[in-house]
Amino acid sequence: MVVILEKNATPEQIENITKHLEAYGFQIHKSTGAERTILGAIGVKPNFDTRNISILDGVDEVYRITTPYKLAGRNFHEADSIIKIKDVEIGGKHIAMMAGPCSVESEDQIFRLTKVVAQSGAKIVRGGAFKPRSSPYSFQGLGEEGLKLLRAAADEYKLLVITEVMQMDQIDLIYKYTDIFQLGARNMQNYSLLKELGRVDKPVMLKRGIAATIEEWLMSAEYILSGGNRGVILCERGIRTFESYTRNTFDLSAIPVVHKKSHLPVIADPSHATGLRDQVPPMARAAVAAGADGIMIEIHDDPENALSDGPQALLPETYLKLMNELKLIAAAIGRTI
Amino acid sequence: MVVILEKNATPEQIENITKHLEAYGFQIHKSTGAERTILGAIGVKPNFDTRNISILDGVDEVYRITTPYKLAGRNFHEADSIIKIKDVEIGGKHIAMMAGPCSVESEDQIFRLTKVVAQSGAKIVRGGAFKPRSSPYSFQGLGEEGLKLLRAAADEYKLLVITEVMQMDQIDLIYKYTDIFQLGARNMQNYSLLKELGRVDKPVMLKRGIAATIEEWLMSAEYILSGGNRGVILCERGIRTFESYTRNTFDLSAIPVVHKKSHLPVIADPSHATGLRDQVPPMARAAVAAGADGIMIEIHDDPENALSDGPQALLPETYLKLMNELKLIAAAIGRTI
Amino acid sequence: MVVILEKNATPEQIENITKHLEAYGFQIHKSTGAERTILGAIGVKPNFDTRNISILDGVDEVYRITTPYKLAGRNFHEADSIIKIKDVEIGGKHIAMMAGPCSVESEDQIFRLTKVVAQSGAKIVRGGAFKPRSSPYSFQGLGEEGLKLLRAAADEYKLLVITEVMQMDQIDLIYKYTDIFQLGARNMQNYSLLKELGRVDKPVMLKRGIAATIEEWLMSAEYILSGGNRGVILCERGIRTFESYTRNTFDLSAIPVVHKKSHLPVIADPSHATGLRDQVPPMARAAVAAGADGIMIEIHDDPENALSDGPQALLPETYLKLMNELKLIAAAIGRTI
Amino acid sequence: MVVILEKNATPEQIENITKHLEAYGFQIHKSTGAERTILGAIGVKPNFDTRNISILDGVDEVYRITTPYKLAGRNFHEADSIIKIKDVEIGGKHIAMMAGPCSVESEDQIFRLTKVVAQSGAKIVRGGAFKPRSSPYSFQGLGEEGLKLLRAAADEYKLLVITEVMQMDQIDLIYKYTDIFQLGARNMQNYSLLKELGRVDKPVMLKRGIAATIEEWLMSAEYILSGGNRGVILCERGIRTFESYTRNTFDLSAIPVVHKKSHLPVIADPSHATGLRDQVPPMARAAVAAGADGIMIEIHDDPENALSDGPQALLPETYLKLMNELKLIAAAIGRTI
Repeated sequence: MVVILEKNATPEQIENITKHLEAYGFQIHKSTGAERTILGAIGVKPNFDTRNISILDGVDEVYRITTPYKLAGRNFHEADSIIKIKDVEIGGKHIAMMAGPCSVESEDQIFRLTKVVAQSGAKIVRGGAFKPRSSPYSFQGLGEEGLKLLRAAADEYKLLVITEVMQMDQIDLIYKYTDIFQLGARNMQNYSLLKELGRVDKPVMLKRGIAATIEEWLMSAEYILSGGNRGVILCERGIRTFESYTRNTFDLSAIPVVHKKSHLPVIADPSHATGLRDQVPPMARAAVAAGADGIMIEIHDDPENALSDGPQALLPETYLKLMNELKLIAAAIGRTI
Repeated sequence: MVVILEKNATPEQIENITKHLEAYGFQIHKSTGAERTILGAIGVKPNFDTRNISILDGVDEVYRITTPYKLAGRNFHEADSIIKIKDVEIGGKHIAMMAGPCSVESEDQIFRLTKVVAQSGAKIVRGGAFKPRSSPYSFQGLGEEGLKLLRAAADEYKLLVITEVMQMDQIDLIYKYTDIFQLGARNMQNYSLLKELGRVDKPVMLKRGIAATIEEWLMSAEYILSGGNRGVILCERGIRTFESYTRNTFDLSAIPVVHKKSHLPVIADPSHATGLRDQVPPMARAAVAAGADGIMIEIHDDPENALSDGPQALLPETYLKLMNELKLIAAAIGRTI
Repeated sequence: MVVILEKNATPEQIENITKHLEAYGFQIHKSTGAERTILGAIGVKPNFDTRNISILDGVDEVYRITTPYKLAGRNFHEADSIIKIKDVEIGGKHIAMMAGPCSVESEDQIFRLTKVVAQSGAKIVRGGAFKPRSSPYSFQGLGEEGLKLLRAAADEYKLLVITEVMQMDQIDLIYKYTDIFQLGARNMQNYSLLKELGRVDKPVMLKRGIAATIEEWLMSAEYILSGGNRGVILCERGIRTFESYTRNTFDLSAIPVVHKKSHLPVIADPSHATGLRDQVPPMARAAVAAGADGIMIEIHDDPENALSDGPQALLPETYLKLMNELKLIAAAIGRTI
Repeated sequence: MVVILEKNATPEQIENITKHLEAYGFQIHKSTGAERTILGAIGVKPNFDTRNISILDGVDEVYRITTPYKLAGRNFHEADSIIKIKDVEIGGKHIAMMAGPCSVESEDQIFRLTKVVAQSGAKIVRGGAFKPRSSPYSFQGLGEEGLKLLRAAADEYKLLVITEVMQMDQIDLIYKYTDIFQLGARNMQNYSLLKELGRVDKPVMLKRGIAATIEEWLMSAEYILSGGNRGVILCERGIRTFESYTRNTFDLSAIPVVHKKSHLPVIADPSHATGLRDQVPPMARAAVAAGADGIMIEIHDDPENALSDGPQALLPETYLKLMNELKLIAAAIGRTI
């Protein structure tokens, strides 16, 4: 932490500031320049609230100069993390594809669509079982029955399962059926849930909150990592901006930045980012070209009658065509899919 | 809902669009202009996903033209809602003051500060008992013990209690001690929690999410109202923007807008909006002048040793001086405090 | 325009609203529903200020329901516009590459770098001659001398020239040397300049303002188009959001949206969007994959001593390697580069 | 400037970074910690592009730790600046009121409205003479004729004049008629214009750009100040955010922040911030309560026929009533109006 003092800070103020810094456990290096005195405070704890110093009289600015996360940072773990789940790896040269319907709707539906996923060469099938919705009259998901069907379909086609957990009391149940827990954007800062998932021995895909900075996103990852669970996968799904012609602004510029700051793999979710079927293929292609370590796509073979998010689901044939394009783009940048 | 067709929409496309609208239960008024055909679709359900129509071939634009909320709207309830709790009214000519520490820390602390709140003329004391924090090593709140102390202090000084609920399984416990449930910004779209609070017979103060539009905020209010709980109080606490010199942008322009759209009272929380003690008084004054129906302020008599959010807590003397200014400003616009 | 009346609008209010609409030249269709009366107002001028109606008593909401631009819209011109400049086409199946230094610095520099541009297969060289900077002591560009050198270098290697115009009084001078005028993000709503460029018979590349919506961007394009200049090329270069780890958020999701709304070609500028050399290649690749009709890249062979924007300039060898990747990605989506 | 090196930075990288810093003219203090090496670079020029260092191999983060502005900062000039124009002071205990129509429309109109301004006790009348608009068919302002009428009306009622300058070639003309130059939000970063206004001996009111950070706003002020013109007045008029129910988000939280960072006075413009008449009074009151040093209000006595921005103009009677409220609020915080 660097503390810049006001030009006219008095010796009493400086002494008071120094005393506070020491009380918080910092070692202090004072450097007095021609114009300003600067205090370097060494030993900052990741979560120290710098406001405690910035409100003291005589302080002009406080800069933290260390990232508030550590385990998630590239400085802690220099090489890319590769998350291994059974025979699938996420985070290496290979790009992981995840596809499936928004919700598991019926045995027939999930088996039909899982077959499409397997055909495409993807190794992971997605599907939601719990769907708390803005309207209490809307479809709320099949619950455990949905999880069972999803597991059975995945087993039939030898795929992994990823499904969303929304509340702490669902963890044990979902654990029985899933290979990867998905944590949704609205729960990115649900600390109780993050804490519990830190103790689980299955990977977690952590979606970026709609208004979360990359730093906050990595801090949430840190929370899971610090609980002992090293299987954290990030997922970019669009942020909120002033633009209204798009549902969200898909922040692909985050991908190279995350790769620079962190060793964790990053998946991109163009289905939720755009919300509209015809914008999914260009954004999926762009995400691969930008360096995403995986893509998650929603598909449906009868989107008009889908029980949730039909408008953003790709038809199987569009999805299969897209996969071919993605393979060529991956090859162009020296990766496989 | 108004559906604008593309200039070159074919008769087959128009027929298909019409069929879809009818299947969704709309009545249709078609108006064919020189340049474009427009379909008016009457009977839209509040939560209809307009993307179902906008992805059809031949459709240019879809406008919902009705608010997705109803019970929260001024059209449903023309007069201002006044929430009555014991002998306190929130939402009328009188401006409700809520003050107290961020966290209940000890019996002594909460009694001392509650006394200050009572002295100031405020009728409601705040204090947190559950504090899940970004670090697992930080103070997590006193839990039920904190609730008991807060209730006892409030009873001693004949004040109402407001305290935050963070998870569904805390509702019953908190119900025993509080007069008003506070729902935090991060839980604004926690639908399971909103649903449960809709069934409770005590008022709920619903904080606006950091990236929530006014419309989404009113939709969350709608969720509680539709469960039968008419005691919904809104609370503005700052939104996230590109500006980095402020912690949040305190959106006071939301206050007159909410008053135009909705009958619900709006509280302003300058402590969380600004995060810094010296910015709280000007923003509290501005909120009263902008028409807020109440102000929530964090106070502490030893902020440097506060267990949470000390930097934004006002000292008792600053708080009491601020109250005097607020009374004069309230009088200037024909209200009392 | 659709005018939704308040539930309790009185007959006098409705009459007054109707009278106003007629005075503004609208034809009115009134439809009285069970709950609300809706007035459809036909004949809206693109720039009608809907606030004139929304402030009338009895009005609840006003929706414009027509785009404020016309010539820039896909409804006006269904096929993609292809801008032809000498033997180069922008907007078709071929992706246009533009590259060169931020500023023209010397004869030697611009000839060396133009040679690299030509080698790469790009057909357009860029370079700035006017550089008003935040500091009056910084390099301000070579002015007309820079334009001459840029033209000479382009002619030597048979390339087209694109360079920025910043003020109205520079148009005639720049016209003598350039093939395409570039209009910078800060001038996107400089209406006097847009008007003048509407009368010029050379194409204009219009950069999106850092906080401009897609709609505002298309309205600025409309301004040029309506002056008679049909050679408008759009350019996405990043928008301002809450994220601070990136310089801007490169809005690639804008590309498919612009292609849906408008027939105009869209170039992407990853150099300015990211501001950092190592983020340019992934974002250039993503832009091609997202469907951009061209890419503009800044290059320099001695970036540490560049007179402006060195940190975002690619080295020639990195640029040439990137071009190879872009060709493969273009091929993957059925385009050439 | 503080340069944080990567954990694994090699001695060669550190030497190279040091060499670069020295070449840029910095003095270097190296401090080697247990985990990281940190380089303090003293002597940074206000406009040094820190990206020049952040792209070097071995660098993790670069923090500027000095503000890029100097003359505009509180460290340079500790007391509040008071701008004196004839017998009017802006920036002290007294709050300056500026009012008048959006555009000067006719002799009769501007004299009628200037009379209202004088009646209210305000000392400054506003009115636009140049109105480049999005449509070439809209009213473009009366030009010099408008300036003459505005000056004559102001002289008649012994008021000061403020009017907007939009282009460099208007400065000399406007100088003859105005007391204060207004620089609009879109021109906040028009460096050529800022430079010219830095040489003028009349004050400039600098509006904040719609997407400008407070830092950028102060840097633009710096530009004028560094030219020798010390009469800089800031003006907050709303920023662009994700919220769509308001035209802009009126950033009143900027006011105490600017007062902390800078000695320059800050005016608030609720008319442009909200764009709607009924939201102007609450926001004007809030701005005074937040500590604004002045308020600018648009008024019109026939807003339905106003040639520009009628919907945001207050009627004279509403304006006079508002002035009375503002006087009471000013008194509540120890100021006058």
